[in-house]
Amino acid sequence: MSEQATPTEPSGVGLVESQTVELFTAARPLALDSGASLGPVTLAYETYGELNAAHTNAVLICHALSGDAHVAGLHAGDERPGWWDGFIGPGRAIDTNHHFVLCSNVIGGCSGSTGPASIDPTTGKPYGLHFPMVTVADMVRAQAALLDHLGIRRLRSVIGGSVGGMQALQWALDFPERVESCVIIAATGRLSAQNIAFNAVSRQAIMTDPEFFDGRYQEHDAVPRRGLAVARMMAHITYLSEEGLQDKFGRALQDREHLSYGFDPDFAVESYLAYQGSKFVQRFDANTYLYFTKAMDYFDPFPDDPTATAALAPVECDFFVCSFSSDWRFQSSRSKELVRLLLRHRKHVAYQEFASSQGHDSFLLDVPAYKATLKTFLDRRAGILQ
Amino acid sequence: MSEQATPTEPSGVGLVESQTVELFTAARPLALDSGASLGPVTLAYETYGELNAAHTNAVLICHALSGDAHVAGLHAGDERPGWWDGFIGPGRAIDTNHHFVLCSNVIGGCSGSTGPASIDPTTGKPYGLHFPMVTVADMVRAQAALLDHLGIRRLRSVIGGSVGGMQALQWALDFPERVESCVIIAATGRLSAQNIAFNAVSRQAIMTDPEFFDGRYQEHDAVPRRGLAVARMMAHITYLSEEGLQDKFGRALQDREHLSYGFDPDFAVESYLAYQGSKFVQRFDANTYLYFTKAMDYFDPFPDDPTATAALAPVECDFFVCSFSSDWRFQSSRSKELVRLLLRHRKHVAYQEFASSQGHDSFLLDVPAYKATLKTFLDRRAGILQ
Repeated sequence: MSEQATPTEPSGVGLVESQTVELFTAARPLALDSGASLGPVTLAYETYGELNAAHTNAVLICHALSGDAHVAGLHAGDERPGWWDGFIGPGRAIDTNHHFVLCSNVIGGCSGSTGPASIDPTTGKPYGLHFPMVTVADMVRAQAALLDHLGIRRLRSVIGGSVGGMQALQWALDFPERVESCVIIAATGRLSAQNIAFNAVSRQAIMTDPEFFDGRYQEHDAVPRRGLAVARMMAHITYLSEEGLQDKFGRALQDREHLSYGFDPDFAVESYLAYQGSKFVQRFDANTYLYFTKAMDYFDPFPDDPTATAALAPVECDFFVCSFSSDWRFQSSRSKELVRLLLRHRKHVAYQEFASSQGHDSFLLDVPAYKATLKTFLDRRAGILQ
Repeated sequence: MSEQATPTEPSGVGLVESQTVELFTAARPLALDSGASLGPVTLAYETYGELNAAHTNAVLICHALSGDAHVAGLHAGDERPGWWDGFIGPGRAIDTNHHFVLCSNVIGGCSGSTGPASIDPTTGKPYGLHFPMVTVADMVRAQAALLDHLGIRRLRSVIGGSVGGMQALQWALDFPERVESCVIIAATGRLSAQNIAFNAVSRQAIMTDPEFFDGRYQEHDAVPRRGLAVARMMAHITYLSEEGLQDKFGRALQDREHLSYGFDPDFAVESYLAYQGSKFVQRFDANTYLYFTKAMDYFDPFPDDPTATAALAPVECDFFVCSFSSDWRFQSSRSKELVRLLLRHRKHVAYQEFASSQGHDSFLLDVPAYKATLKTFLDRRAGILQ
């Protein structure tokens, strides 16, 4: 989440505001995969560009684990634009001259949408771990209700990277009649044992922090900072490639000429990671981290061939699947597995692996061939290119 | 550390005992790379086989991060043999019919040798973080004093995997006249930024545990269990390959048929990791983990070409360097870098990459070609093979 528009690129969407809408109520709750239900449900969302009269130009962005609805532009008073600002705006890859772009903070989130930090109406206290488990399909179901609210029947495209890519795939499966095209970036059809293992250690770090209080840390005026920082630091290593880390830091020392022979950070990479951890803790809720990682673990829309056949039968959208050469969190081989599955079921699929040394984080970064290909794919959907 | 002799292999070294010896005193301390000195220094060690009359058949094993001096055989009353038992004994790869095998717990350790849990003679309390920083060269210097004590002038071979391989390399550099051959397994000449990053997160997990008490947890009758368990769980993922984890666990559920929709472990890989973490905490000291990871970070015997030339000039031993195809903690490419450096300096080097799906942990496991090649190399040194 480090890509930022630079001052030399003033052409973005400019000042933006988040909006919120209550989509489900206690009386008319959202039904969840677990069998539980959730209400009220508020979603925070942002939109950029104009919805055309026929309501046919909507592009939905699905955010990743640490993202939120603030994809592009500046909030008043902020210096940092949204997390994918360089991709969105007039003339950019996701061109707001042609598309109506929207993104919502997913349910379970901590940036304006209903999540574990919200007040449980039955107790008057924050949900904490009494928040029901939400799956990727639940997240998508809530997004579909937002589209209903906005009068959008069909999406020109649904786009996401990482767990956002899982949401995009789920959209194509669960709402085949509402999806024209689906862009799945640096994602996978299911987590591997190693993916689950890293998530499990993250959760262990958070849940064993004494400031966690069984998820009721808000009531104790506490934050499980140490555990969340450790979780983020570890995850951050997996978002970068070995090569990228080596190029950026190598064995350079941090603000010193000689080894300290002590336990302060000696190496620049140590300071960098500690900074990433402490920064994350200021903006992200630990319980949301638990819920989102669990939703990723659970995601498995095609556990076997018969379920794949059944799930894919009604799907007619155009898929664009892409991956990055140095991504080891979700390797290209995992994207190719998904592509092969889609092809076996005679779906329309384009696939591209982009060269990048930036690992999984590449999906957020200015990799020129990636940006250009995404732009071409979406411009074509808008009828700008044939 | 999971390789165990099976009941069908009763031919090992049998019952063994650890011994201890005080090698340095407060009056005659061990000089350390940091400029500090350490005394008294006790080393715990084990030996298997017989030292021949000429004292020319000694093979030194250097243990890795979580290892100790108990390499082979059974301690009275124990059911589990030493950590490399399958490799050591009459007729085995490190054949005790021909070699006198020894291993010592390194300084800074927690299994009988002087380390941060030892009593600081100047305060009468455990050292904790007042224990001086020890480097790989310091560890080796203490091992050399043990050889002096045992009357061993020259080693037939020094062998180690992972940080044990770093010690083996350091032996060849610092005591060239005392090393006939050097076996460096699944190791590297220096940690990469990613390696350092994982170590840094491990230390962060331990040092931010409220039960850490600035390293004085013994005085508080506490143990930073949570942090040490998280550190171990994370490290454990890096010791295994993605493929190995996938083959062993995949997405299998643990003792359940359906997802729990809660935060208990759903997947078998989660339970496995939690078990590894809790088991490790029972046997390993958190401060030692800090010191050993820092020693690994600092290891860099050839920061540039001139130092390599100077360090390697007097070295005459035969090197055998090996790596494992699925090891991503210390990839084969890192071993090959070391091999190229040694070759450029006209050293005698054999190198082999062994196919294994078990990742970094392969060095501890029964990979038949690896075991056979190691046996051949060592049998030749003993004059059994030509």
